Amino acid sequence: MNLLIKNVTLVPMDKKNDILENTNIYILNNKIEHIGYLRGDLKVDRIIDGKGMVAMPGLINSHTHIGMSLLRNFADDLPLHEWLTQKIWPIEAKLTEEDVYWGSLLSMVEMIQSGTTAFCDMYFFMDQVGKGLEEAGIRGVLTRGLIEEEGKSIIKLNETRELYRNWNGKGNGRIKVMVAPHAPYTCSPDFIMKSCALAKELNTGIHIHLSETKREVEDSFKQHGKSPIKHVYDLGVFEIPTIAAHCVHVDDNDIEILKENNVSVVNNPGSNLKLASGFAPVDKMIKKGVNVALGTDGSSSNNNLNMFEEINLAAIVNKAVNMDAVSIPAKTAVEMATINGAKALLWSEEIGSIEVGKKADLILIDIDKPHLYPHHNIISSLAYSVQGSDVDTVIVDGKIIMENREIKTLDVEKIKYNVGKVAKNLINR
Amino acid sequence: MNLLIKNVTLVPMDKKNDILENTNIYILNNKIEHIGYLRGDLKVDRIIDGKGMVAMPGLINSHTHIGMSLLRNFADDLPLHEWLTQKIWPIEAKLTEEDVYWGSLLSMVEMIQSGTTAFCDMYFFMDQVGKGLEEAGIRGVLTRGLIEEEGKSIIKLNETRELYRNWNGKGNGRIKVMVAPHAPYTCSPDFIMKSCALAKELNTGIHIHLSETKREVEDSFKQHGKSPIKHVYDLGVFEIPTIAAHCVHVDDNDIEILKENNVSVVNNPGSNLKLASGFAPVDKMIKKGVNVALGTDGSSSNNNLNMFEEINLAAIVNKAVNMDAVSIPAKTAVEMATINGAKALLWSEEIGSIEVGKKADLILIDIDKPHLYPHHNIISSLAYSVQGSDVDTVIVDGKIIMENREIKTLDVEKIKYNVGKVAKNLINR
Ligand SMILES: [Zn+2]
Ligand SMILES: [Zn+2]
Repeated sequence: MNLLIKNVTLVPMDKKNDILENTNIYILNNKIEHIGYLRGDLKVDRIIDGKGMVAMPGLINSHTHIGMSLLRNFADDLPLHEWLTQKIWPIEAKLTEEDVYWGSLLSMVEMIQSGTTAFCDMYFFMDQVGKGLEEAGIRGVLTRGLIEEEGKSIIKLNETRELYRNWNGKGNGRIKVMVAPHAPYTCSPDFIMKSCALAKELNTGIHIHLSETKREVEDSFKQHGKSPIKHVYDLGVFEIPTIAAHCVHVDDNDIEILKENNVSVVNNPGSNLKLASGFAPVDKMIKKGVNVALGTDGSSSNNNLNMFEEINLAAIVNKAVNMDAVSIPAKTAVEMATINGAKALLWSEEIGSIEVGKKADLILIDIDKPHLYPHHNIISSLAYSVQGSDVDTVIVDGKIIMENREIKTLDVEKIKYNVGKVAKNLINR
Repeated sequence: MNLLIKNVTLVPMDKKNDILENTNIYILNNKIEHIGYLRGDLKVDRIIDGKGMVAMPGLINSHTHIGMSLLRNFADDLPLHEWLTQKIWPIEAKLTEEDVYWGSLLSMVEMIQSGTTAFCDMYFFMDQVGKGLEEAGIRGVLTRGLIEEEGKSIIKLNETRELYRNWNGKGNGRIKVMVAPHAPYTCSPDFIMKSCALAKELNTGIHIHLSETKREVEDSFKQHGKSPIKHVYDLGVFEIPTIAAHCVHVDDNDIEILKENNVSVVNNPGSNLKLASGFAPVDKMIKKGVNVALGTDGSSSNNNLNMFEEINLAAIVNKAVNMDAVSIPAKTAVEMATINGAKALLWSEEIGSIEVGKKADLILIDIDKPHLYPHHNIISSLAYSVQGSDVDTVIVDGKIIMENREIKTLDVEKIKYNVGKVAKNLINR
């Protein structure tokens, strides 16, 4: 289907970064064909009135565990260790394929409703997430979180090889698969190196947790005599394009390594605050030239998947941390959630900005809401005022996924019903 | 009008703090008459179906400058001094009565739509805010921010005396007036003492900014040899019930003074982060027994008036600051925005919790939204997942102010239109 979005305010997030008022966007099949004046030569099937709307690239949630929505508000306000060992891990051990399917679909509904069009997931039962992605019509990177277990290395790596074969490129190219050794504290050097060999074999990227907590970094120094980042660098991980989630406790040396090796860092401000992990030096990393994307982490440590909240947090929290009201200005925060995320997910040729030739992954925001009045500065508004619930329309790969806040691809009532059911069973299991 | 809210989940925020599932709330005239079983003897005019809803006390925004909504997203990402002197103050000098009227109404729309039923405002042209409050039907404390000017002390104090006479107790008791010496750095000791004398004469409270920035505290030590808090304490301010906005840079001595004198502190996490003011020691103050309420500050330093965002920030930011995932648990954050706010505004006998005999100021939250599924823990949900846009119904003083997100008391389209108009004129003036 060919679409025309008329009379819209466009925040393209491209290199020129001009905001275009009252412009028109032509989408032919799944791509942006033309931006600007009206063209009689381009036949369209549908015209969307963009008056009172801002068009911007769909948001990219570069680190999450979407199956964990089932555990939203299940265990909060607990010390990290108790939270993990007594609450999260025991209940995760009980999760079934069906649970992860419904939890993942719930997350996709939430992401669509708050303007996220692509995500990078790390969890298990990833076939279910692939199934959900095909139905939802959005874009995603599937990574099976690999936690090393005695004697199971080959099985686990084969599972990811299988996942890649079954899902990479599926959904008209909307689905990717990467390799995800969970973290240096759950995977031995040998297992991490085997994961890297697999990523090389599949010609795909690595997704890993690095330096999330102070304790993890201290332990790494004790065990390996170096930081987690230096440790995996020495193992050769960064020869492969890498998505490094968190990077909260990093020193100048770490930042230098991240920069030199084009590692993409995913900042998860909501999760880092809620779990008391600390404050990542986002401003410093960006100034040193590191690509820093943005993520929500899982819903049990956030407790939602609302990227507009993360944009806002990135913009305001770093100001206070750096005692500098200019730190992470609005535009930078929005870049983290769009083009930087696209780079992290090795997708920047296709998504992350609204440009002719790129895939049509974009959202329309209803700026006619009272809390967005008056309209002094659109970029400021996106970072400081817009709510996830202001997203009116979501287009992914040229298809209308949500319009007037109504999701076209998923049965929301059925998903809520099934989530309620499986969550109840899970607690009683 | 008498109301019955049936089959609702009630989070009363009273001392017992039990959550009641499937309960019923009777509102006779403007008060809560009965909570619990259905009573045939109580005649009601309207029944509201509370299924899928959580009832909680209306949120209380204990420190704001609501006229500043006109300046939302007007000037961001600037150093504090430049922001104030080159952007905010010059444009504020141009504001007219009409501007403040429309800006204040816009803020009331935004507050109602995000569940705030009472606020404490400090600005100018306060008659306009009073007029707006009468129309909007919500509750507010009017305080005329007093910045000392040579030879104008008597005029300025008389203005507040007049404000008190015209507005205190109006709107069926929904409107209060207090005295607001802006801050120790804009008011001399003499002027502060005169403000206090006026507050004593009127038998009302004081609203003041204290210790917002590091520099302000350093300057106070240079000028007075003591902190802003010790300075105003020595001037006798705290003999009067005081609302102290910010209190970011406070030491143990300050906290002791605040506690001993029953001063209510208003934490404004969003503003403190965005303006790079720093992190208030909220957890410490609460543990020492200080009443800490919550506010948004003005929309030009936030940039909205969404108290659910502030609740979330209070709950998550303090965890990271204190490196303690148990710091400011969900319940405490919700208390800050409800009963603690009521105490700050000297209104805790009437509002701040849902209890028989109190005024009926309450909100209904639609928890049937996907991002609130599943329903493991309601209090966690309120602090970590609920969005301002999940507020479905707002009742103040027993009257339905919003239902199904439709505001009954204000003409939202007219307000948006006029805000757009006056904001444009303001910029070009
Ligand atoms: Zn994670
Ligand atoms: Zn203020």
